[in-house]
Amino acid sequence: MSQEVMERIGRIRGLDQAAIQASKLHISNLTVPPGSLGKLESMAIQLAGITGSVKPSFDHREVIIMAGDHGVCVEGISAFPQEVTPQMIHNFLAGGAAVNVLARQAGAEVVCVDIGVNSDLSHPDLLSRKIRYGTANMAQGPAMTYEEAEQSILVGMQVVEDAVKRGVQLFITGEMGIGNTTASSAVICALSSISVQDAVGRGTGIDDSRLLHKIGVVEQALKINAPDPRNPIDVLAKVGGLEIGGLVGVILGSAINGCPVIIDGFISSAAALLAKAICPASADYMIVSHASHEQGHRLLLQELGLRPVLELDLRIGEGTGGVLCLHLVDAACRIVSEMATFESAGVSGETKEQTK
Amino acid sequence: MSQEVMERIGRIRGLDQAAIQASKLHISNLTVPPGSLGKLESMAIQLAGITGSVKPSFDHREVIIMAGDHGVCVEGISAFPQEVTPQMIHNFLAGGAAVNVLARQAGAEVVCVDIGVNSDLSHPDLLSRKIRYGTANMAQGPAMTYEEAEQSILVGMQVVEDAVKRGVQLFITGEMGIGNTTASSAVICALSSISVQDAVGRGTGIDDSRLLHKIGVVEQALKINAPDPRNPIDVLAKVGGLEIGGLVGVILGSAINGCPVIIDGFISSAAALLAKAICPASADYMIVSHASHEQGHRLLLQELGLRPVLELDLRIGEGTGGVLCLHLVDAACRIVSEMATFESAGVSGETKEQTK
Repeated sequence: MSQEVMERIGRIRGLDQAAIQASKLHISNLTVPPGSLGKLESMAIQLAGITGSVKPSFDHREVIIMAGDHGVCVEGISAFPQEVTPQMIHNFLAGGAAVNVLARQAGAEVVCVDIGVNSDLSHPDLLSRKIRYGTANMAQGPAMTYEEAEQSILVGMQVVEDAVKRGVQLFITGEMGIGNTTASSAVICALSSISVQDAVGRGTGIDDSRLLHKIGVVEQALKINAPDPRNPIDVLAKVGGLEIGGLVGVILGSAINGCPVIIDGFISSAAALLAKAICPASADYMIVSHASHEQGHRLLLQELGLRPVLELDLRIGEGTGGVLCLHLVDAACRIVSEMATFESAGVSGETKEQTK
Repeated sequence: MSQEVMERIGRIRGLDQAAIQASKLHISNLTVPPGSLGKLESMAIQLAGITGSVKPSFDHREVIIMAGDHGVCVEGISAFPQEVTPQMIHNFLAGGAAVNVLARQAGAEVVCVDIGVNSDLSHPDLLSRKIRYGTANMAQGPAMTYEEAEQSILVGMQVVEDAVKRGVQLFITGEMGIGNTTASSAVICALSSISVQDAVGRGTGIDDSRLLHKIGVVEQALKINAPDPRNPIDVLAKVGGLEIGGLVGVILGSAINGCPVIIDGFISSAAALLAKAICPASADYMIVSHASHEQGHRLLLQELGLRPVLELDLRIGEGTGGVLCLHLVDAACRIVSEMATFESAGVSGETKEQTK
């Protein structure tokens, strides 16, 4: 791995165990039965471990939408044409997409990064970090070079670094790229024991015959490229995508900078699996948002060891599920900041007497 | 059933089918693949059917916390003593409980109703609608009379009517009552094919021996009282609770007044099952929030035909999960109000070409 990437990853620290213990003690005194707040409690404890604060809050949060195109689209694996990628980027920049609406609701900024769109884009609010004009067709050979894969990760890390300098405290992964469920399926098959049949889903909504075709394309990409499961950069280069690499960088960058990162849907979870393979400690900084409708997603989350909090049957990406999860992160933060304790409220604890 | 209750139920109308069709058409033009917003779409369509508006919003929303005590507590079925019921009511009124914190976050008011607490309570913000000082011990005989059960439903309906007059547009069910998971388990066993073993859970956190004891108490209550499964009022009277009846009234009252009602956890879902048994059309007005940690809850939701949107392992009640669901209701409303259409954003639709 390049020196720039390696040096950054070396800065990832384990969670603050003292803050975790202090958070657990604080929660045990709140006026609820022990453990009854379920995942809100575990989220509050994790956030304490990440920030070092028992009562954290995240006023500045940003969705990073990494956008890139996929050469494999020529195989006809998507329900939408490739020109939708730049069209949707303009929609993001105009504030009209689902992620924009949900980000406004949750008080999050949306940042869009062109890391590999297959056309020239120009907009004052677009971060232009193009590495190449889309990937090559992975059904015929590697999607990109090893150096380009490393570069995509570095771009994601740098986008996070710049945002942290502007005061951003929490990140949400988002993406746009027609064809990227196909690449994500190939990535998770290369990195895990999940089968191609299980990993490949309908993406934005393809029919049965196109689904079979998509499975065949992923099988072919894996066979032709033979990505090395012990080398996540090799996997990313051969069967991944530029925006997937960018998200790996966003996730690792969040961990490097001590920020929680909310993982959106299927593509973001594939990036999370790559990030965890590169640096297992980065998983401590991940908050998983939802189990999407994409069939391989549940298996992928099990592989990551993460349990989602939302069950919305989303199959959209963009960062939508991630942004919705912000309300639950905020809820966890408010619970530890605002709730009464048994003592302050004069509420009795559990009875210790035995059953009659 | 009493004339007052019957007459009100007769006012429940089916959903506005024209608004439902208009909502579906509108959603199909938004810049997302068809169906990709999953349950947010179905929620938006349901809310259109309830309100008659394709772009509804709910600025005034209220959590109604029905509070009551349970005579069955003398059997030692709960981890907490009965005096926690009034203590927690004071906590709600002081704004320090979990539901208060989460309601502030979601912009909802909290209203607390004493419908059957086993002690005298007085507070300017408490609605005093006490029917009796707690139920009788259902393990020895009926929890309450048939008339008291009807009265509890009427109280819930009237609380909703008063709130609607104040401009409230959406309701969230909440409850407090030590012992009420025991009563709720008995209710769902009486009304459905769910077994006592499956319906009885650990409530606020009892151990194995007390769980076995709780199962025995529910079995005894069902055997002694033999509630009539074809008569939901009889079930409520014999093995229910005053706050459960109050919630049945809140749910039916919401439907009567054309308002959506978010169903919180296990106890609220038992009330929803009673409401649906009394008037099947009321189910169209229900939005289920979360699948709680209480083991019978998932089976109960299947019985109701409702799919939760949150998976938080909550086992608390109060209305906490219901209030968290408000963010998703708001998200559904914003999606239909604020998103761009394919045409307005200049985004291409699905390709119709065949797979190569």
